[in-house]
Amino acid sequence: MIYLFTTIIGSFILDHKLQLIHFQQFKDITEFQEKEKGEAQLRKKYQQLQPLPPEKYPLALAMLKNKQYFSLFHQQNMALTKQAISSSVNEDNLIIQTISNIRELDSVTNLLSKRLREWHSLYYPELSHQIASNDAFVKLILSKSKTELMKELHQKQSIGAALDKRHCDQILHLAQQIANLYALRENHEQYLEKVMTKYCPNLLALAGVTIGAKLIELAKSLKRLALLPASTIQLLGAEKALFRHLRTKAKSPKHGIIVNHPLVQKASRKERGKAARRLADKLSLCARLDYFKGAFKAEEYQHELEKALA
Amino acid sequence: MIYLFTTIIGSFILDHKLQLIHFQQFKDITEFQEKEKGEAQLRKKYQQLQPLPPEKYPLALAMLKNKQYFSLFHQQNMALTKQAISSSVNEDNLIIQTISNIRELDSVTNLLSKRLREWHSLYYPELSHQIASNDAFVKLILSKSKTELMKELHQKQSIGAALDKRHCDQILHLAQQIANLYALRENHEQYLEKVMTKYCPNLLALAGVTIGAKLIELAKSLKRLALLPASTIQLLGAEKALFRHLRTKAKSPKHGIIVNHPLVQKASRKERGKAARRLADKLSLCARLDYFKGAFKAEEYQHELEKALA
Repeated sequence: MIYLFTTIIGSFILDHKLQLIHFQQFKDITEFQEKEKGEAQLRKKYQQLQPLPPEKYPLALAMLKNKQYFSLFHQQNMALTKQAISSSVNEDNLIIQTISNIRELDSVTNLLSKRLREWHSLYYPELSHQIASNDAFVKLILSKSKTELMKELHQKQSIGAALDKRHCDQILHLAQQIANLYALRENHEQYLEKVMTKYCPNLLALAGVTIGAKLIELAKSLKRLALLPASTIQLLGAEKALFRHLRTKAKSPKHGIIVNHPLVQKASRKERGKAARRLADKLSLCARLDYFKGAFKAEEYQHELEKALA
Repeated sequence: MIYLFTTIIGSFILDHKLQLIHFQQFKDITEFQEKEKGEAQLRKKYQQLQPLPPEKYPLALAMLKNKQYFSLFHQQNMALTKQAISSSVNEDNLIIQTISNIRELDSVTNLLSKRLREWHSLYYPELSHQIASNDAFVKLILSKSKTELMKELHQKQSIGAALDKRHCDQILHLAQQIANLYALRENHEQYLEKVMTKYCPNLLALAGVTIGAKLIELAKSLKRLALLPASTIQLLGAEKALFRHLRTKAKSPKHGIIVNHPLVQKASRKERGKAARRLADKLSLCARLDYFKGAFKAEEYQHELEKALA
């Protein structure tokens, strides 16, 4: 009677007194992950080979306390852990990083645009008041050449100062950087859409890029989002209001991040809660379809919602 | 006896009963600003012309309440105000905007670098820990091609995930934007140096670009900086600590923004207050030399300070 005892470092062949007959070491973690192959070969070699019965594990493990195996265990364990960490990076992480950076870029472009407006106001103060959108403001400044702007300034009798080219250049450089950051944000969104088309087509189609990605971010992963009850999805992003409601007598929130969804936006103020609840229901279904690799039903849901909320 | 009475809209020739004989209108604000020329011509034409004595002003002004002058007054006043605002933009404003934007850029690059490190860690987590400076981290990521990095990853057995090019591209785009923002900051500093070389050479030479510009920003203008006592300059930027000292029994601050100056940095902790006081003395002199267009003495001061603080 001889036994086979496989650990992460290799397979041990032991006799009935648990003395070592043969040690077949794994060269790398792949061999461990395909240990059945190795075991089959050993079975061919040793006919009477049987798996070690669990009650003999403590004795077998005592043998492994031999120092010669320590470094092997360490190496193999490290390799396994590295692989586990490495393969734990999935679409969830990428989506979360991207949507976080989009938020970061929003605040950054806002900050720099404020500065741009103030700085540019030395030169042409009337312009900033005319254009509310930061994006449009940056584009306008960049689109007009100096001479065009000067002409306009003269025609409108601007109260701005006549600044030299080298002064204006600094302002234009700043505007260019802001425009580049807007372009990066755009690029991120396109990338997100590509990743999500593959990873969560239903969620993408019904929620849109930004809301979909933010839901995954708030739930921490698509898996957790799929397992959340629809009522929780309805309130994702409204945690502050929710806990205020639970702590004090404040009103309960009716919607979290999904308030920005067109279907909720379109609803009248009174109907918003209802719209959010119905939308969250369908979003929950979408997340589940995506996580469990179901069919594409988002469009169907979209029509249902539009009908119900009309 | 006829009188000459000049206002911003033109010169009035009045007889002894203050009846209007002739009204010479100014065509634009330049004519008003060179009113002496016009008055001289009128004196040639009307030999006995005398300036209106102040006691007759109220009567003359009553005449101006005639509606025909209202729009003229309005136009000319607007033009004057516009010119005043336009010419109020000076080096102070430009320096303050630039140094403010440098500060903005510092916080923005910090924010985006943090995100970059987190995002890049999915890919090569060991790298972020090795390099403390954000600037160097961004440069390193951009300098290595994908294949180089992959090779390194393999050699070092990184625990990062093997990400596709399209995933890495987003990270690289972000790194590129951060690098551009660093370049913009550099550009701003060069520009500041040029402006300050002309506007406040002494302050620039003794304080350096950043501290010099920040002092002007904190004082609101070079003029105000020149008029501040040296002890105030010593504490510019330490207002919070100063008022805490005045309000409570907290220790008085010994230095404001000038703590970052090499001469103060070099001093031992005990000597810092003394170094700051002496530096502020000289900085105050520099600001005064610059504002009142004095000689270039910054280098002399620098030597004196180095000697005294050695």
